[in-house]
Amino acid sequence: MTAAHEVPVRGLLRVGVGRPVDLSAIDTRATPGLPPLAVTGPDRKSWAREQVRQLGRDLAEQQEMLYAQAVAGSGTGRRLLLVLQAMDCGGKDGAVRRVAGAMDPLGLHIRAFGPPTAEELDHHFLWRIRRALPPAGYVGVFNRSHYEDVLVVRVDSLAPEEVWRPRYDEINAFESELIDDGFVVIKVFLHISYDEQRERLLSRLTDPTKHWKYHPGDVDARAKWPDYQAAYAEALSRCASERAPWHVVPADRKWYRDWALAHLLREHFVELDLAYPPARFDLGFERARLLAGDGAGPSKVNVG
Amino acid sequence: MTAAHEVPVRGLLRVGVGRPVDLSAIDTRATPGLPPLAVTGPDRKSWAREQVRQLGRDLAEQQEMLYAQAVAGSGTGRRLLLVLQAMDCGGKDGAVRRVAGAMDPLGLHIRAFGPPTAEELDHHFLWRIRRALPPAGYVGVFNRSHYEDVLVVRVDSLAPEEVWRPRYDEINAFESELIDDGFVVIKVFLHISYDEQRERLLSRLTDPTKHWKYHPGDVDARAKWPDYQAAYAEALSRCASERAPWHVVPADRKWYRDWALAHLLREHFVELDLAYPPARFDLGFERARLLAGDGAGPSKVNVG
Repeated sequence: MTAAHEVPVRGLLRVGVGRPVDLSAIDTRATPGLPPLAVTGPDRKSWAREQVRQLGRDLAEQQEMLYAQAVAGSGTGRRLLLVLQAMDCGGKDGAVRRVAGAMDPLGLHIRAFGPPTAEELDHHFLWRIRRALPPAGYVGVFNRSHYEDVLVVRVDSLAPEEVWRPRYDEINAFESELIDDGFVVIKVFLHISYDEQRERLLSRLTDPTKHWKYHPGDVDARAKWPDYQAAYAEALSRCASERAPWHVVPADRKWYRDWALAHLLREHFVELDLAYPPARFDLGFERARLLAGDGAGPSKVNVG
Repeated sequence: MTAAHEVPVRGLLRVGVGRPVDLSAIDTRATPGLPPLAVTGPDRKSWAREQVRQLGRDLAEQQEMLYAQAVAGSGTGRRLLLVLQAMDCGGKDGAVRRVAGAMDPLGLHIRAFGPPTAEELDHHFLWRIRRALPPAGYVGVFNRSHYEDVLVVRVDSLAPEEVWRPRYDEINAFESELIDDGFVVIKVFLHISYDEQRERLLSRLTDPTKHWKYHPGDVDARAKWPDYQAAYAEALSRCASERAPWHVVPADRKWYRDWALAHLLREHFVELDLAYPPARFDLGFERARLLAGDGAGPSKVNVG
């Protein structure tokens, strides 16, 4: 377990329950929770990157214990679900690559959601979400999520208000049901500024290895920035609960974003107090059985 | 691109097409393709681990270009599918963690298959496989695969011979169809010895952090070692084609296993001659449009 930094960051990033959210009041370049020495030092970026590497090893071990418990049948359905939301260029992909990428890909269950398709719009908005939930023992990552149904659906009027308005309550009920089923739900909004989005879009237009990430529709969506911020503010405010709080991670600085996300994950893992499960079989008996059959080696191999 | 090692390993590991396979003649501790200096040096293990890290960065870049081409619509359906098979303890999970783990988890499509369930047995044996195929642009990994249907199904008589016997031809037709659809199919058998399996099973009985990996059924399956080797030999022989060859990777040494697998993947990537796709929009126009709307910043944010 990394001892490098023990101040919990989740409390610093958590949105107040039952209160309005003012995103414009949250500095997208802030670094809440970063140790003071790291903040003032000249090398805080490389320091944070190294911290993320160390935390990654912790996360991989925690993930293995979570998975092991599920395999051993002692996990009581526990699993993590990281719900990642952000404006375009907010850094969801990069955060997944660097933070979830430190874990074992066999234990990750990553699903991405865009604006609902025609087929998806013909179903209840949680239909596609339920199909994508991680099994017990896994770390699920939703790259966008059910929140799209009160974000892009609202801003682009993909459904009328009488359809999307009741969804805040439905989302709260849904997440509560997940938690009853053993889910740890970690909701994170990666918060970038309007200026930072422009810089990142420009770099996608400048760097030939990034052209594929650019879509002309991104500029159209950017024109609706205030509408999106308002939709986010309402979603975060209406769907922040004690059991499934929202966290706002200032994300203009990628190294801080990754550092904060790795800490958030680790703090939630630690709370589960995981351990490798004990054997559910007689170790001595199995060892004897394994060695007993082996005196003569395998019978001759019959090549087909 | 790593220049550290340019002797192709795929040809060294490939099973001859249309010939019988004698697994007992393949040394599970061999290191085909390893440069002589590395083989004789005392630090070949750490050398190989460092090579895998370097190759991992190459693989991640290749994977991104593959994905970028699919996003840009210029990938013509191309994708990789790594089919991993092995005896119990053969190291499939470790190989995925170390080699596929170097790539971006967002671009991986990993699926595991066990012995077919009751529901799966009620369908054609390829039903569950087709549902699990990676989308274009992804790197798919099958942790066990459709070959289980001529391996465990044969050895444990989960279906009568008149059912599994025709499957070799069906598998060949299926893989041919995948390749026509743009798949690169890389089939790998991780080959361990009977003795190595015993050591690995013993370590799962000894190390409390590994108990969860042990199942009493593993010893029962081990008693059928010759039957499994014969089933593997026939599957590799009957389903090795020029377009979808089988590779046998000596896997008693984990560091060689990972080194060989990373090279195999890289060699298949390189053959695709990937590049970042060009922009499909007018760069100057988009840049002007992006900057034009930004004079006054976003309109005032309305917090909901």
